[in-house]
Amino acid sequence: MSELSTDSYKGVRDFYPLDWALMQAIFERLRQTLALWGYEEYNASPLERAELYESKGNEEIVSEQTYTFEDRGGRRVTLRPEMTPTLARMVAHKRRELPLPLRWFSLPNLFRYERPQRGRLREHYQLNVDLLGVKDTKADGEIIVIAHALLAAFGATDDDFVIRMSSRALLDAACKAAGMKAEAARAYLRLLDKKDKMPGADFKVALDAITSTDPLALIESDKRVRAEKEKLMKLIEAFKARGIANVVFDPSIVRGFDYYTGIVFEIYDTDPANSRALFGGGRYDDLVSLFGGEPVPAVGFGMGDVTLVDFLTTHDLLPASTSAPELYLGTPSENDLAAANGAAEMLRASGLRVFINLSAKSLGDQVKDADRRGIPYFAAVGDEEKHSHTLRVKRLSTGEERSLSLADVAAHIRNA
Amino acid sequence: MSELSTDSYKGVRDFYPLDWALMQAIFERLRQTLALWGYEEYNASPLERAELYESKGNEEIVSEQTYTFEDRGGRRVTLRPEMTPTLARMVAHKRRELPLPLRWFSLPNLFRYERPQRGRLREHYQLNVDLLGVKDTKADGEIIVIAHALLAAFGATDDDFVIRMSSRALLDAACKAAGMKAEAARAYLRLLDKKDKMPGADFKVALDAITSTDPLALIESDKRVRAEKEKLMKLIEAFKARGIANVVFDPSIVRGFDYYTGIVFEIYDTDPANSRALFGGGRYDDLVSLFGGEPVPAVGFGMGDVTLVDFLTTHDLLPASTSAPELYLGTPSENDLAAANGAAEMLRASGLRVFINLSAKSLGDQVKDADRRGIPYFAAVGDEEKHSHTLRVKRLSTGEERSLSLADVAAHIRNA
Repeated sequence: MSELSTDSYKGVRDFYPLDWALMQAIFERLRQTLALWGYEEYNASPLERAELYESKGNEEIVSEQTYTFEDRGGRRVTLRPEMTPTLARMVAHKRRELPLPLRWFSLPNLFRYERPQRGRLREHYQLNVDLLGVKDTKADGEIIVIAHALLAAFGATDDDFVIRMSSRALLDAACKAAGMKAEAARAYLRLLDKKDKMPGADFKVALDAITSTDPLALIESDKRVRAEKEKLMKLIEAFKARGIANVVFDPSIVRGFDYYTGIVFEIYDTDPANSRALFGGGRYDDLVSLFGGEPVPAVGFGMGDVTLVDFLTTHDLLPASTSAPELYLGTPSENDLAAANGAAEMLRASGLRVFINLSAKSLGDQVKDADRRGIPYFAAVGDEEKHSHTLRVKRLSTGEERSLSLADVAAHIRNA
Repeated sequence: MSELSTDSYKGVRDFYPLDWALMQAIFERLRQTLALWGYEEYNASPLERAELYESKGNEEIVSEQTYTFEDRGGRRVTLRPEMTPTLARMVAHKRRELPLPLRWFSLPNLFRYERPQRGRLREHYQLNVDLLGVKDTKADGEIIVIAHALLAAFGATDDDFVIRMSSRALLDAACKAAGMKAEAARAYLRLLDKKDKMPGADFKVALDAITSTDPLALIESDKRVRAEKEKLMKLIEAFKARGIANVVFDPSIVRGFDYYTGIVFEIYDTDPANSRALFGGGRYDDLVSLFGGEPVPAVGFGMGDVTLVDFLTTHDLLPASTSAPELYLGTPSENDLAAANGAAEMLRASGLRVFINLSAKSLGDQVKDADRRGIPYFAAVGDEEKHSHTLRVKRLSTGEERSLSLADVAAHIRNA
C-alpha cells in the first residue's frame, strides 16, 4: 500500500498545541472584553443552505469564491464565507422571542475558495460583533468604541491604529449630487472600494468611464452631502470626549458588501509595513428583513484572525500563551508510577496541571524532557517522597530547589 | 422578491447565546480537567483530503456517510467525520520534532451525512483525548482513568455509569481458537458490534452463518484467550486500587472502527432509560504508520456532545451556565447615556460585565427588561449618581437595594 500524505488540505491550517494555545489566548482576550460590554456569544454550523448567500447580490463571492456543493438529497450547501447572513437568519428566526437590542458576538471559522497561488487561506477565524435593534448613532458609536476597546485590550494605543469612517448615506447623497443613476452609483462604489489596490491613473480612467463628476469632490459644495458629513463629524467628536482620538473621516471607505446602509468603517495599522485594512464593518438595516417580518436595524464588524495576528506581531502585542503543564513528575523507576499517580491526584485537586513521566528514561533525561516540553517545574516521586508526602520541587529556569509538602506545591508554583 | 427561509441547513444546530453558554460551560469543564492531567489542545480544519478516510477500510462510512465533494481544482475534499485520522496525520507530519509521549486533546465538530428521517444530527462536537507513544498498559490505564475523571468532574459517581472493556487481542485470539479465517473473523466482529441493536434470534442466525463455534464461548477454555482476559482483569484490578470500581470486562465490546489493535472500551449510562453507549475508544497502534515512518502506538477515545448532554441531563449534572451580563445600567433619560458610559467604563475596569440601556423605555420597563434578560442586578445612572459616583444597586431576585460607591459595586455583586 502506498503511503498517505501528511499534508493538510490546501490552504487550511493545522494547529499544533503551541499554535492553538496562541489562538485560544487571543480568543479568550476577545471574549473577556466583549463579556465586559454585555455581549453574548452565539454560534452555528459552517454548513448553510446556498440560497442564503445567493439573494444578496454579492454575485462574485457566491459564484466563484465559495465552497458550494450538492448533498445526496439534492440540497445545495455552502460552507459559510461570512457570518452576517447566518446572524440575520438566526435573529429573524426568533424575532419575537428575542429582547432587542441584541448585543451578540461569535468566533466562527469562515471558508473561501481562494486560488492557491495567491497564498491566501481558504479557512480563517473571524470575530463578529453586532448590535441589533438600535437605529440611531448611539449604536454606531458603541460598535466603534468596542472595536477600539478590543485592540486596546491587547495593549494597542491610539498611535498603533486609525479608524477610518464614512457612511453609505454620504456616498449615496454624493452620487445623487453628481447626477448618477443607481447602476452608475453601484459601479462607482465598487471602483472606490478597489481604489487602494490599483494605480491612480487606472482609477482615473475607470472613474471617467462612469461619471464626469467625482462625487467625492462635492462633499463640501452639496448641502445634503455636507449634512451627512456633519453627522459623521459629530460622531467623531463624541469619540474624542470618550478619550478616543484616532477616528477620522475618510470618504473613500466603502466596504465590499452591498448590504451596508449607514456608517462604514475600516481599521488601519499605522505601521507602513502593514498598511492594508485590518478589519471593518458598518450598518446594515435591511438584512434581517430579507427573511420577512419587521426590519431589525443592525451595526457590526468582523475581525479576521490572520490580520489581527499580523497587527499584534508588528506591534509586539501578542498575548503570552502556553499549552505546557506546570509540573513534571519524574519517576526514578517504573515501579514508582503508582506513587506518582497518587501524588498527582492530590496536586490536581489543588488545581495544578501535572505531567507524569511514563518512560523508562533516567531522571536526568526526564529533567531534559521536561525542559524540552516547556514545563517549568520538576519533581521526582520515589520511595522517600511517597512516605514523607513531600516533594523536592525544582524550577528548571534557575535550578532553584525547595522541599515542600504536597499541600504547598501548587501555591509555591503559582506565586513564583 | 420571495422571502428567505430562516431555517438552518437540515440536521445542524443553531446555538443561541443560552445554548452556546451551556456548550461552553461543558467544554470548559472538559478543558480544565484535561489540563490538570497535562493534556494539550490541538485543532485542525474540518476540511480534509478525501483520501485520508478512503484507505482505512471503513468503506461504509466513506462511501455513504461522509460529505465528500470535488473542489474547483479537482481535489476531493471531505468534511471530517472523525478526528483520529487528522490526529494521526498531524503526528506523522511532525514525528521527529514532537517529544513522545504526546498527551493531546481536541474539541472538533464532525460531520456525517445522516438520512434526515432518522432524526440524527449531521454535525456534532466530539471531545477527542489521546495518549500517543506509549505501548504498554500504563497508557491504557491512564486513558480510562481520564474518561472516568471527565465524568466525575461533572459530579457523576461510579453508580451513574459503567466502563465496559475488552480487547481486540482477546477477540482475535478467540476467533483463532474457533478456527476462523481473517475474513470470517472480520464479519464476526462486525456482527458482534451490532449485537445490542438486533433481536437475539437474528444474531443467532447471523452467527451460525459465519461460524459453528461462538468464539466468546472459548474465553475460559482456550489458553491464549484466557491469557488475554487475565491481562484485562489485571488492569481492572489496578483501577480498583485507584478507587475506580465501575470498570468491568465485557467481551461483547468491539468498537466499529477497523483500526483498533488493543483494548477497546465503551462507557454506558446505568440509567435504563439511556442505555446506549455514551462514548468509547481503544488502542490503535498502526494508524500513524499508515503515513510512513516509525509506528507510534496510541490509545484514546471520543466523547460526543449529544450523548454527554443526555447523560448529564438524566443525572441532573448539567453545569450552571449563563450568557447574561451581571449588571444592567438603566438611564432615566436618553441624555444620561454619556454618564452611564462613564460609570460602565469604571465598572468594567473592575471586571464587571455591564449591559447599558440604549432604549427610551421608562425605568420601570428597563427593570423588566433586565429581568427578562436574566441580568441579576440593576442600577440607574442619572444626574445624582453622576455627581456622587455612587449607584443604588438592586438585586432583582430579592428586591434588596444597596447604595455603593462605583469602586465597591463589583465586589458587592461578586460576593453575593
